[in-house]
Amino acid sequence: MVSYLDFLNLNDAEIGDKLKDGKITICVIGIGRIGLPTALVFAQAGAKVIGADISDKIVENINNSITYIDEPGIEEILKKSITSGNFRASTDVPASINEADVIIICVPTPVDSNKNPNYSALMAVSQDLVKGLKKGSLVIVESTIAPGVVEEIIAPFIEENTNFVIGKELGIVSCPERADPGKIFECLKTVPRIVGSIDERSGNLAGALYKAVMGVKIVKVSNPKTANAVKLTENIFRDVNIALINELAILYEKIGINIIETIGAATTKWNFIPHYPGPGVGGPCLPANPYYLIQVANRVGYIPYLVRLAREINDRMPDNIVNLIFEALNGIGKAIKGSKVAVLGISYKSGVKDIQNAPAERVVNSLKKFGTMITCYDPLFENEIVFGMPMEESVEVAIQDADAVVFLTAHAEFKELNLEDLTRFVKLPTVIVDTRNIFDQNEVKNAGFAYRGLGVPVL
Amino acid sequence: MVSYLDFLNLNDAEIGDKLKDGKITICVIGIGRIGLPTALVFAQAGAKVIGADISDKIVENINNSITYIDEPGIEEILKKSITSGNFRASTDVPASINEADVIIICVPTPVDSNKNPNYSALMAVSQDLVKGLKKGSLVIVESTIAPGVVEEIIAPFIEENTNFVIGKELGIVSCPERADPGKIFECLKTVPRIVGSIDERSGNLAGALYKAVMGVKIVKVSNPKTANAVKLTENIFRDVNIALINELAILYEKIGINIIETIGAATTKWNFIPHYPGPGVGGPCLPANPYYLIQVANRVGYIPYLVRLAREINDRMPDNIVNLIFEALNGIGKAIKGSKVAVLGISYKSGVKDIQNAPAERVVNSLKKFGTMITCYDPLFENEIVFGMPMEESVEVAIQDADAVVFLTAHAEFKELNLEDLTRFVKLPTVIVDTRNIFDQNEVKNAGFAYRGLGVPVL
Repeated sequence: MVSYLDFLNLNDAEIGDKLKDGKITICVIGIGRIGLPTALVFAQAGAKVIGADISDKIVENINNSITYIDEPGIEEILKKSITSGNFRASTDVPASINEADVIIICVPTPVDSNKNPNYSALMAVSQDLVKGLKKGSLVIVESTIAPGVVEEIIAPFIEENTNFVIGKELGIVSCPERADPGKIFECLKTVPRIVGSIDERSGNLAGALYKAVMGVKIVKVSNPKTANAVKLTENIFRDVNIALINELAILYEKIGINIIETIGAATTKWNFIPHYPGPGVGGPCLPANPYYLIQVANRVGYIPYLVRLAREINDRMPDNIVNLIFEALNGIGKAIKGSKVAVLGISYKSGVKDIQNAPAERVVNSLKKFGTMITCYDPLFENEIVFGMPMEESVEVAIQDADAVVFLTAHAEFKELNLEDLTRFVKLPTVIVDTRNIFDQNEVKNAGFAYRGLGVPVL
Repeated sequence: MVSYLDFLNLNDAEIGDKLKDGKITICVIGIGRIGLPTALVFAQAGAKVIGADISDKIVENINNSITYIDEPGIEEILKKSITSGNFRASTDVPASINEADVIIICVPTPVDSNKNPNYSALMAVSQDLVKGLKKGSLVIVESTIAPGVVEEIIAPFIEENTNFVIGKELGIVSCPERADPGKIFECLKTVPRIVGSIDERSGNLAGALYKAVMGVKIVKVSNPKTANAVKLTENIFRDVNIALINELAILYEKIGINIIETIGAATTKWNFIPHYPGPGVGGPCLPANPYYLIQVANRVGYIPYLVRLAREINDRMPDNIVNLIFEALNGIGKAIKGSKVAVLGISYKSGVKDIQNAPAERVVNSLKKFGTMITCYDPLFENEIVFGMPMEESVEVAIQDADAVVFLTAHAEFKELNLEDLTRFVKLPTVIVDTRNIFDQNEVKNAGFAYRGLGVPVL
């Protein structure tokens, strides 16, 4: 055991050595898409790691080296880490916290149906912290939270419910994860970490740990809330820029301009970076993160109009896609009622098995209301039940007799499709609705389909 | 004379050769910040260039090798080009057009006080085109315009008022300038050019000319309106991202977070690029360009909420700065009425002598209404009269007895100021209001001033 207090006498190299020698125990709370890879990277570096989670099923699976998180190589790394004894999972969160020197919190921070931040997982962890924390522990919050949550909620809660003084007997740090789903391991080992702490020593220690384990640059900021603001700023930047491009995509199509061509040309300017239109912004982060900032802003009486509008534009994109499907079917003289629509791609992101906040769900539910017959296919969800619907086993089965084939995710498999072959399965005239710029319009038409694309005028 | 029609038999290298041999005459209409450097670059490459402008004063000055455009090196290049006989200016626009093989339009496209696009200069040029154009001319529009203006207004106007068929006897191309004021020459020779034409040959010819003269990459797009959309998209991207950062700057200050620190840390993420808060967005482009798109959008019934909101946020920034000055003076117990406020920096951009849409004007006018005594200084406008006010000859004179010193432009000179020295001139307590993150807060306070900064909480 090398506690936060013991750390004070160690330099960075010594911390790295202790870690590699298995003298440091890490508890990662929440072993999902971020927590599990993070835990495994620490375990691979030699730390003793406990993955704590309230889900019996996840813990049992992980202890049997099974995970449904589809990050490249994760199964093999998990198996090795379990076999080596460096990693195990537990449902006893307080006990796991008590056993650890360093506690890393990776629980989800989603929004509820009213778009209010839902801190319940983090609050539950806070209660476990006061049960399990011992003098000298270092707590690192990786979850995305509003600025101020560490300083104004978690830290006071811990101090009020333990005998420990933060900054003296306990360390608490915000070090928001910045990893890209589908490339989590790669990101963990390349993307600099933002570290904000209440006392300087905690920040230095957290930085030294991440540097030793991940080999990444550490960016120290003034306090936890600044670290949280950095994370929110990054994701809001993306959300706003995607909203801008979504807005322009719809406008440009109306005035006969191809948004994809426009983005490509604009990208040749030194201070422009491309974002792409799509059927909506899914995943655990972008659809939720802005509301964490909006809530804080409302509290201080400063509504961030632009952040909110951007979020609302992206939130409404599935409706625009349903409208595009309407128009597409209308273009071939078919009503949406009674038409058969094949939805291809339900993941929110290409190549990633994840349907959190996926726009596909909203599109499918809207189509159902209009009396459309829907089939779905996603190479990552073959034969599963998703959104209460059976996923087909192949593209060919899904598009059987389809009037419209709607692509919502740019999975690599879709890019390889031979469209001409596919005409054999559908009920021509059939329109392909491409919301992800997977296909060239002429290619689609030459294959025998009608075409509609998001942000792409019909030639 | 090598006309558009003659060009058809030439390859790119031959076009370059003809140009260098002085066999091609170029008329650049509008010889301001973009037009003059563009004309000079063509002249330097060997072309015969006429700079046509309706301003007697500008034409006379230029023919005497005098320009007030402060691009680095421009005076010397102008003198050489006049002396060599490759360049001259003229107020006779139709005659200049008639003399030329290639006409490049660089007139301003601002907005009026109702934020409506003002195409009057471009319409006047269109009338000159029908008077002066001869068979075989190539017309290149560099001015920033809405998508469709070339196809739906200029081209039909020319065809209706001449006997020429566009695409056969005349070429017309959109090739929007993408240069950064203060670095125009550098940009002209490095930034790829977007070329969109009605007929393919015109686009090829325009591309060959720019490639030969500027040495830059040519990006061909489908038509003029796409080229115009690219330009608007680039500038709207900047306007939106500056608006986002301005919004966050105000919010973050309220919750105790430093926007500059946040931007710096966020910039370590691979898909984030920094934009900075400021007292407003000035210059000829960003405050006007979005309205060109908004007008077109209104016409097709699709209000681009995000583009509009971003513009409005930036447009309102001077009011936020006035409020910041209020708060800053209040912080040292002074009312704005009767206080003396020194405004340092009136250019919209550091190092560039240009007050088009400069936020300083709005700030100064608001302060006047509140009964503030105002002095102004800008190293680029010493002793001139600007906004109806005398510009002081030095920082020291401007800040004499000041209660607040407000920095609106991050001129290099300001960064070099010795703040401690300046306390001798002001009427302490005096607050420095830094809207451009020129100074470190502690440095300001250690020098003896109070401090307020945009997006920077007071420590």
